Amino acid sequence: MGQIAVIGAADTTPEEYQVAFTVGSLIAKNHETLVCGGLRGVMEAACKGAKEHEGVTIGIIPDTGNGNEYLDVVIRTGLGHARNVIIAKSADAVIAIGGSYGTLSEIAIALKIKRPVFGVKTWNIEGVMKCATPEEAVLRAVDASRHLP
Amino acid sequence: MGQIAVIGAADTTPEEYQVAFTVGSLIAKNHETLVCGGLRGVMEAACKGAKEHEGVTIGIIPDTGNGNEYLDVVIRTGLGHARNVIIAKSADAVIAIGGSYGTLSEIAIALKIKRPVFGVKTWNIEGVMKCATPEEAVLRAVDASRHLP
Amino acid sequence: MGQIAVIGAADTTPEEYQVAFTVGSLIAKNHETLVCGGLRGVMEAACKGAKEHEGVTIGIIPDTGNGNEYLDVVIRTGLGHARNVIIAKSADAVIAIGGSYGTLSEIAIALKIKRPVFGVKTWNIEGVMKCATPEEAVLRAVDASRHLP
Amino acid sequence: MGQIAVIGAADTTPEEYQVAFTVGSLIAKNHETLVCGGLRGVMEAACKGAKEHEGVTIGIIPDTGNGNEYLDVVIRTGLGHARNVIIAKSADAVIAIGGSYGTLSEIAIALKIKRPVFGVKTWNIEGVMKCATPEEAVLRAVDASRHLP
Repeated sequence: MGQIAVIGAADTTPEEYQVAFTVGSLIAKNHETLVCGGLRGVMEAACKGAKEHEGVTIGIIPDTGNGNEYLDVVIRTGLGHARNVIIAKSADAVIAIGGSYGTLSEIAIALKIKRPVFGVKTWNIEGVMKCATPEEAVLRAVDASRHLP
Repeated sequence: MGQIAVIGAADTTPEEYQVAFTVGSLIAKNHETLVCGGLRGVMEAACKGAKEHEGVTIGIIPDTGNGNEYLDVVIRTGLGHARNVIIAKSADAVIAIGGSYGTLSEIAIALKIKRPVFGVKTWNIEGVMKCATPEEAVLRAVDASRHLP
Repeated sequence: MGQIAVIGAADTTPEEYQVAFTVGSLIAKNHETLVCGGLRGVMEAACKGAKEHEGVTIGIIPDTGNGNEYLDVVIRTGLGHARNVIIAKSADAVIAIGGSYGTLSEIAIALKIKRPVFGVKTWNIEGVMKCATPEEAVLRAVDASRHLP
Repeated sequence: MGQIAVIGAADTTPEEYQVAFTVGSLIAKNHETLVCGGLRGVMEAACKGAKEHEGVTIGIIPDTGNGNEYLDVVIRTGLGHARNVIIAKSADAVIAIGGSYGTLSEIAIALKIKRPVFGVKTWNIEGVMKCATPEEAVLRAVDASRHLP
């Protein structure tokens, strides 16, 4: 079993929230561990989806609080945005959903360290593999995490 | 359920290894999550003990490898010694076993941020609560993690 | 006097090297402190330019070495890519030259924390202010650093 | 010229403040760069002493503010206590004055990475070289920074 990161903004549209919920659900059904930034929005939705399907959720939070209520494990970094790097490094594959500059920084770091990045309605950056649906993103991310070099 | 950190050196005496194994076993039996630095020595022993008793083990490693073989979750920080701070912050209570300067830095940070620190044959620093046995250390750490302010 | 960050890749084209050299020279002539990642390529060129004009150069390096030979001050972070965040936070204004994914991550973080980012032949990201020449980039960055909110 | 770190608490006694001021003054007179945590107390006193003797002062601050008023360069880490590691790594030699748990963590990290640590009325830890006066501490730290292995 691998570790799949879900990245995206703390402020989301209802559509992004639903996509993230589905992504989290499918990660859990595939028995992969969900890693995320542990806050609201995309992160919360993915964790909620995972927990409704008996998944394991890890929140690598920027501060020293407790993160969202769907976390099994809280990694309190106190590093602010620098924690984004830890999320990318800890992931075998990354799924990006929507997102603003914070998400862009995570995408860039993930590509820099050669993690496969699958995107659903996110930044159009060379190297990000566009997926039409959450189902496609999880299918490809799970496959990538199981065929690591 | 809380998160209890076990800290100590990667190079251990057989006695320290045994103490750490017992500590990890008891953390698991108490249904607490074990957080550690994810490497060899005290960290490996505690994880091994936890996994033999169906516990959950989190390794917050300094580099970007995979840590020891008894980890359920690997947090790859790439931060070197700065990852010690994350271990302290992520813990509800800390158990220190033996240890050299790296362990001392973790003890100091844990005390700085007011985490309860229980020590078995470790640095004699004001604020560390000395415990005679691994059993005593886990009993007190579990109790502390369940009565957080 | 403010702190202006110059960001870009360690591998550069001769043209990028020349642009960075000019940028560093002009930062020094404007009596601003040059902050950078302290390594080769764009970073080295900017530092070289600054030192040839009696500027002050700060290298925030990812490892624990000494960085390039044109640094007055070496900040050894040992944080790897996470040091990019410190560069952005330490800058009053950022000048991006060329660059790959590492540079993109710095641009994203800088925009996230609302630092003005001026770009010369770099990533085309909303929020980056495109400059045609190194002279324009430094002029605007110096101006921005002196009119901080 | 090397980089000498001065570490100690933000809350100081008048005596510690005076010791730190003298240490900063002497670091400047010896043409070494002063590195510190950039806040109040020991850090401010050392910076003040250095600036009254035309020294160069670097503050590696935990947050994203501006640090004390005697800093030439502000490195805004946003890393909280994890910035202590950067201070130790950036120093060729470390002078510890008084201090509580934060200072202890810096001493421990410095010893862990084999930086020479000179102490004036600070923690009594094996490996710290006790100095009776600020003059002795700076003399020995300067000497150590010029004879690095």
